Amino acid sequence: MGELATMFAPERVAVIGATESDGSVGRAITENLAADYEGDIVPVNPNADQVLGFECYEDVGSVPGTIDVAVVVVPGSIAVDVVESCGEHGVENVVVITAGFSEAGSEGASREKRLREVASEYDLNLVGPNCLGIISTGVGMNATFAPQNAQPGSISFMSQSGAFITAVLDWASDHDVGFRDVVSLGNKAVLDEGDFIAEWGDDPDTDVILAYLEGIEDGGRFIETAREVTQDTPIVMVKSGRTEAGASAAASHTGTMAGSERAYEAGLEQAGAIRVDNTQELFDYAGILSGQPLPDGDSVAIVTNAGGPGVMTTDAIGDSDLSLASFTDETLSDLSAALPDGANIYNPIDVIGDADVDRFAEAIDVTLEDPNVGAAIVMACPTATLSFEDLAERTVALQAKHDKPIAASLMGGDSTREAQATLSEDGIPTYFDPARAVRSLDALRRYREIQAREYDEPTEFDVDRERAREVLEAAERRNTSRLGVEAMDLLSAYGIPTPAGEIVDSPGDAEAVAERLADGEGVVMKIVSPDILHKSDIGGVEVGVQPSEVADTYEDLVVRARNYQSDAKILGVQVQEMLDMDGATETIAGMNRDPQFGPLMLFGLGGIFVEVLEDTTVRVAPVSEPEAQNMVDDIESAPLLRGARGREAVDEAGIVETIQRLSQLVTDFPAILELDINPLVATPDGVSAVDVRLTIDQEKL
Amino acid sequence: MGELATMFAPERVAVIGATESDGSVGRAITENLAADYEGDIVPVNPNADQVLGFECYEDVGSVPGTIDVAVVVVPGSIAVDVVESCGEHGVENVVVITAGFSEAGSEGASREKRLREVASEYDLNLVGPNCLGIISTGVGMNATFAPQNAQPGSISFMSQSGAFITAVLDWASDHDVGFRDVVSLGNKAVLDEGDFIAEWGDDPDTDVILAYLEGIEDGGRFIETAREVTQDTPIVMVKSGRTEAGASAAASHTGTMAGSERAYEAGLEQAGAIRVDNTQELFDYAGILSGQPLPDGDSVAIVTNAGGPGVMTTDAIGDSDLSLASFTDETLSDLSAALPDGANIYNPIDVIGDADVDRFAEAIDVTLEDPNVGAAIVMACPTATLSFEDLAERTVALQAKHDKPIAASLMGGDSTREAQATLSEDGIPTYFDPARAVRSLDALRRYREIQAREYDEPTEFDVDRERAREVLEAAERRNTSRLGVEAMDLLSAYGIPTPAGEIVDSPGDAEAVAERLADGEGVVMKIVSPDILHKSDIGGVEVGVQPSEVADTYEDLVVRARNYQSDAKILGVQVQEMLDMDGATETIAGMNRDPQFGPLMLFGLGGIFVEVLEDTTVRVAPVSEPEAQNMVDDIESAPLLRGARGREAVDEAGIVETIQRLSQLVTDFPAILELDINPLVATPDGVSAVDVRLTIDQEKL
Repeated sequence: MGELATMFAPERVAVIGATESDGSVGRAITENLAADYEGDIVPVNPNADQVLGFECYEDVGSVPGTIDVAVVVVPGSIAVDVVESCGEHGVENVVVITAGFSEAGSEGASREKRLREVASEYDLNLVGPNCLGIISTGVGMNATFAPQNAQPGSISFMSQSGAFITAVLDWASDHDVGFRDVVSLGNKAVLDEGDFIAEWGDDPDTDVILAYLEGIEDGGRFIETAREVTQDTPIVMVKSGRTEAGASAAASHTGTMAGSERAYEAGLEQAGAIRVDNTQELFDYAGILSGQPLPDGDSVAIVTNAGGPGVMTTDAIGDSDLSLASFTDETLSDLSAALPDGANIYNPIDVIGDADVDRFAEAIDVTLEDPNVGAAIVMACPTATLSFEDLAERTVALQAKHDKPIAASLMGGDSTREAQATLSEDGIPTYFDPARAVRSLDALRRYREIQAREYDEPTEFDVDRERAREVLEAAERRNTSRLGVEAMDLLSAYGIPTPAGEIVDSPGDAEAVAERLADGEGVVMKIVSPDILHKSDIGGVEVGVQPSEVADTYEDLVVRARNYQSDAKILGVQVQEMLDMDGATETIAGMNRDPQFGPLMLFGLGGIFVEVLEDTTVRVAPVSEPEAQNMVDDIESAPLLRGARGREAVDEAGIVETIQRLSQLVTDFPAILELDINPLVATPDGVSAVDVRLTIDQEKL
Repeated sequence: MGELATMFAPERVAVIGATESDGSVGRAITENLAADYEGDIVPVNPNADQVLGFECYEDVGSVPGTIDVAVVVVPGSIAVDVVESCGEHGVENVVVITAGFSEAGSEGASREKRLREVASEYDLNLVGPNCLGIISTGVGMNATFAPQNAQPGSISFMSQSGAFITAVLDWASDHDVGFRDVVSLGNKAVLDEGDFIAEWGDDPDTDVILAYLEGIEDGGRFIETAREVTQDTPIVMVKSGRTEAGASAAASHTGTMAGSERAYEAGLEQAGAIRVDNTQELFDYAGILSGQPLPDGDSVAIVTNAGGPGVMTTDAIGDSDLSLASFTDETLSDLSAALPDGANIYNPIDVIGDADVDRFAEAIDVTLEDPNVGAAIVMACPTATLSFEDLAERTVALQAKHDKPIAASLMGGDSTREAQATLSEDGIPTYFDPARAVRSLDALRRYREIQAREYDEPTEFDVDRERAREVLEAAERRNTSRLGVEAMDLLSAYGIPTPAGEIVDSPGDAEAVAERLADGEGVVMKIVSPDILHKSDIGGVEVGVQPSEVADTYEDLVVRARNYQSDAKILGVQVQEMLDMDGATETIAGMNRDPQFGPLMLFGLGGIFVEVLEDTTVRVAPVSEPEAQNMVDDIESAPLLRGARGREAVDEAGIVETIQRLSQLVTDFPAILELDINPLVATPDGVSAVDVRLTIDQEKL
């Protein structure tokens, strides 16, 4: 068990603000607690001697003995003081139901700041404020004011919306869905999703962690925790505010600052969380993950008494990452023996409409025996010869016999009710729509894949960190936050190849460098100024300059810069070797910082691929080698790097290494807020960062 | 009413093969008919005097008076004879339940051929064979052997799978879903989906047409019929066999020859059918389309008592083609007056957790009054202060008052049951998952858009059809089915611009043509041979040939062709003007024939866009001008034609016209099986078909 063990298995719970007053939250919580809680209930209220038959105390200090959990339902004005007295008297776990904190304007925000300080001073495990409370069915504790309690089960569920918890509990009571722990996160002043994920990951009685979140407080910590937890326990979550409209609704609802949706998408994927878009999937996936074993492979057998719905199911498999199992010869011959003429022994198996339960069950049995079959879908339409209830019983037995996951689609109404209950007791989900059965099995496959992940450590390249710091500090001394080609050394220091070149500040020096660098094709010359972001647009770049023209070109570049902005700070002119662009592809590697997830790496092909087709991919840094490779694999235009249409393949390994080195750079220097290598030219022989632009935060140096 | 009126409103139904024998299909059908049918039931069976109390006749001929519908359940061996005698005795409508036709091998296929001939001879409206039967609740007729009857309603439903009908009826009886007519299509030997769509389109009592199809017999006719029908009646359908796996499952199930999924996708879209992927959407959409009015616009208001679920709903709107309504100042001020502090008066409206039904209803009322609001979602979580049932009643009243569509999400279990029934009586759907409510409203929006469509006639360009025929006939005379640049005249005849050029058969003629065509850049020369498909690959194309080199190049091209294939038929060499490729973009316009939908037009950008990014779009021909324009709009790389990244925009109108002219060509000549203009070069000044390849079927000339 984790650090929050006593929170979820307390022996003594105090309700501070308990009351008998009708319709009050203090009464609702005390009543909910009184219903099933195995431990002691201690009401605290200076104006009562008893609450609902329990002896009531004036304040926390006057309660004899230890309080494991204090639930605070006092008015906002005194809530922080009450929490402080909890701390003073040794309470470790506090659940603050009281509202009127950061969700309620600036006064509330400063109240929440004080609350956080108090919690920190006394090292409190604090849930809320502004929440519905917590439930732990293991000890029968319902410390919420929800109208409906949770049934016991193995799903632990947290939600940033209290109302959603009440909805889910109401629905769950009617759908035989049970919970281990339930937490209403409220404003997450102290404890957040990362804490509960860690706790439930350590809890042997939690099979699945569900979450409804509108934001994640600390993306990096979330990824780290979730990666470990999901080795044993799946996490299924709705992260709402996905769309622009949704994000602004979330902001007005809880004040959640939306990080970028792309960061969430990448970060949650990297964390191993299974993200879903709606409540139906949330509970469909929770159900099958807590009820069925993981499949060995991704191939599925369909056994049905109806051809048409079998086709629909097959389509749903085609839409998923599952595949239709190919049976062994033995299976085919067994099926052939077991099934009549007209039946289909190939997947989807059609036992046909006149099948009774024996024929149906034999087909399921033979199929599950097949080593090529990882999971099965049992799908039946109502017929005169088949009882859904019999089929359910046989399916449960066969599932147990073969220990392979099954999802059912019993296509009917009332007539399926009993069968559904039988299947559900064994953890086999059943749906009218076979597409839902397929998606649920696909969730199992996905979790198996997550569980099998190995998270490689990011490679630590041998880099010249001091030199990089010098480049950044030089910018600081120039009092600028924007750097361009003058920062090429930053890349070199981290082992990212750049074209040979130098920044010079006189036509003469330019000539000297050009003499050294130029081959027949001449050199590239670029104006170097922190005030000029788009050099090409103002004529600040000249390509193929012959040494004889270098001095004149130097002057031209400076004049153009001055014409553009008379007081532009000009650091000089960069003279760079010409790259052989034959067989070269321009790519982009970059980074910006997300408020929740920190450094977000980006990769894509340059030009139209980024600007028109928006074919880019992102990952939260630091990225390991496989993650960097995945970034390249992810883009749709990747074949262009690999010799599509008769081109020579470029140095893909060089790209992958550059992404990693860049990841190391931006991880080492939080002062780098944004950085773009554009273009990172890739040729069959290597890569070269031809241009760079970055923004730094001097405060963070 | 349509041509099949007597089939769905018969006064007299004969069951040929009726019997009392236990567990037989003949008994099941007679029993089902006897249950509710308002008309006369006439069993026909030579071995019985009575069946279930109805007087039984020896054969169809001995039945006095008219039979409106004959249901045939006799053995396969005599089924065709029985149908023939139906025809002889003036029966117009025949439903053949009997199996053992094309679904059962070659013998069955020839039996089905005979059945079709008989039907044609007597002009029979024949359903099946190999089907479950038909239902028409208007006259209480259940002429199926399904275990469950349909409740009356306004949905007419056809299915290529009989089992799916039994499943749907079982489910529907439990979900208050009613039907007008139900048809099990079976093998579709005579009547197919097009016939029933036409019939139900004419039926004032059918509000929505639902279909489960594995294939469409005649795509062109389907599009034509559906376009007309969907002006008044929405069509929602599952066309299964979408995926490769599904298509092969469908083929083994019903022998349906899969046309290309892309053709179905385009064809059904062009037809105005709303295609869904699964049964949940099929019935969700049917429910709202039959229960709610169409929205005026696409903007939706959300009224909720719970912030978090409001955010989820907003996300779902972001995922759809709906938008979040912006309220008028009047609405905002009314909401502000009606709602307490802490409520959110902006969309999504949060009436907050302590709202009673009056506050909730007032917010709904004010919102629906707003002219900016096209539709509303009423979403509630369980609270102590709100009764779902009261909310349902008020919602029904407000829906009637404002006549705007509403979908509800009552988030709970059993506690929502009664409210759900109240809403459902008024045709307001309710779901636990708000995302389903959003998708259902989006189906209304989509149908409104379909209803508003104007299907322009394809433009009839003035073309030289005779000249085109000559080109094709010339190929026929050469006994070849493949044509290349020698068919450029085909394009010219249809007004598609081609570069100036001629096919010559001697070096001297080549020189003469080159002298005439060459500017400073020279000419293009291509070998012309039906046996050489990929001219460039064998060195059969030379670009920028100066007049002085033309004679030598001629010989070179011929030698290379002979080296490639010594007996290649060489028609000569094409000498073409050089195009100015500055600012040019290569595109592809093509056509191939789909077995169901006929000529399928394709458009895309050339090179990597087709080969690597697969960025192409298709439409069933003939295409009108707006459809051709849509094809260009559809591709992701379209911005490259419109001046992205500082390029000059190309002649998009020229592309659109070329697509239409090509559409007219392939519609005029069914002999053209495939045709590709690749590249169709587009410049700012116009378009030019630089190369063409086609395959023809000489039989069809």
